Amino acid sequence: MDEPVLLTGAEGRVGRAIRGGIAEDYDWRFLDREPPAEETDHEFVVADVTDDEAVRDAVEGVGAVIHLAGDPRPEAPWNSVLQNNIDGAQTVYEAAVDAGVEKVAFASSNHAVGHYETERKPDIYRTQDDYLLDGSELPRPSNLYGVSKAAGETLGRYYHDEHDLSVVCVRIGNLTKGHPPIDYERGQAMWLSYRDCAHLFERCIEADYGYEIVYGISDNDRKYYSLERAKDVLGYSPSDNSADFTNQGEPKDDA
Amino acid sequence: MDEPVLLTGAEGRVGRAIRGGIAEDYDWRFLDREPPAEETDHEFVVADVTDDEAVRDAVEGVGAVIHLAGDPRPEAPWNSVLQNNIDGAQTVYEAAVDAGVEKVAFASSNHAVGHYETERKPDIYRTQDDYLLDGSELPRPSNLYGVSKAAGETLGRYYHDEHDLSVVCVRIGNLTKGHPPIDYERGQAMWLSYRDCAHLFERCIEADYGYEIVYGISDNDRKYYSLERAKDVLGYSPSDNSADFTNQGEPKDDA
Repeated sequence: MDEPVLLTGAEGRVGRAIRGGIAEDYDWRFLDREPPAEETDHEFVVADVTDDEAVRDAVEGVGAVIHLAGDPRPEAPWNSVLQNNIDGAQTVYEAAVDAGVEKVAFASSNHAVGHYETERKPDIYRTQDDYLLDGSELPRPSNLYGVSKAAGETLGRYYHDEHDLSVVCVRIGNLTKGHPPIDYERGQAMWLSYRDCAHLFERCIEADYGYEIVYGISDNDRKYYSLERAKDVLGYSPSDNSADFTNQGEPKDDA
Repeated sequence: MDEPVLLTGAEGRVGRAIRGGIAEDYDWRFLDREPPAEETDHEFVVADVTDDEAVRDAVEGVGAVIHLAGDPRPEAPWNSVLQNNIDGAQTVYEAAVDAGVEKVAFASSNHAVGHYETERKPDIYRTQDDYLLDGSELPRPSNLYGVSKAAGETLGRYYHDEHDLSVVCVRIGNLTKGHPPIDYERGQAMWLSYRDCAHLFERCIEADYGYEIVYGISDNDRKYYSLERAKDVLGYSPSDNSADFTNQGEPKDDA
């Protein structure tokens, strides 16, 4: 992509994973509610994603948006996710359409579908279980944060259908740096390594799609999220697998 | 049901259809933002569904809620549906759970799935087409109002999964009094007569269910919404069929 790429929530965890992997590959415009913790070579906009005017300025001239900004807490209260996540997403989609942006990658979450696990755990976290979610299922949020992420997906569907915006919703798993979560089977099954995260969002910038819901996890032996759409449509080719690490987070001998 | 039933949006079109059919069958508590246009024998609460305290008072002691209140305009602006429809639904579900209410019937809309029609019209409105939506499909809203209704469905899924509230979401078609819409194939395919509307919501009060998405239309010859779940789970048994009327709205000889 030749045009600039807007990254909202650039200072958050997912933003840092993306910047760690592909910071040099694009003409970035970073946006966050907080000023940058460290100096950056790229344009940095300090603004809230519910600020309509600021968002309109921020999307001007960009080719793609990676929209991560929002309240990231699974336990966030309703009023916060209503404003920051639902209203924030609508503000970004609407501004993107008006500015002629081509693509929006929306950071959705495993919490949009967390209640599929309820009657199936702990078996669902283990390799002998072949239950698989593929993105075509209706949301079953585990919390109001998950409700807000599902609403962001539905907003994306509308802006695609109505305004032909390309939208990919990435239901992000458990993003941790260096190694998978320890003593947490669920987190290991939905582990997303930093480099796979950066690569996946690079594919969201580069690939051609209409509207997609994909799962954002590494290619873990244990998984209940299908990577089929991410691989087929986006060309996602993950490098990591939580099974290549011991439960102490050390790489296995053969990894 | 022996306990009172709360009907929000009691003065709106759907509220009037329900009251016209089953007003005498329940100990109703009506709620609307506007005072009643005509005198009623039932308790009437004038309140906004985004008013947390008023809603908590209104659900106290009720066995079931039929939640219709919200901005009903397909062209309603985002800020209105965000507050009145999305925040309003959350306020009602949350209060219902806290008060120990057993069931909530949520008025969703055909606009939650309107964009399934886009590449298929006008064939989808005609009897020779067998394309059918059944409620298991992801939303494809035709407008921001439809987005808000889909969000209300997802909120219901969460409150069911997390708090064991029984929730049925009724994707209401085209409700008109007396006869189907004239010169409007789409409206004829998704016609809901007043008596079928009242009967359907009576089933929502009486039937046993966990979480359901059903379509609220009469048993029209032309239809692209399945009535299977409504019939099987709720015991819905519609009386009307738009094909029994001429396109001038007159009953056919054999109807």
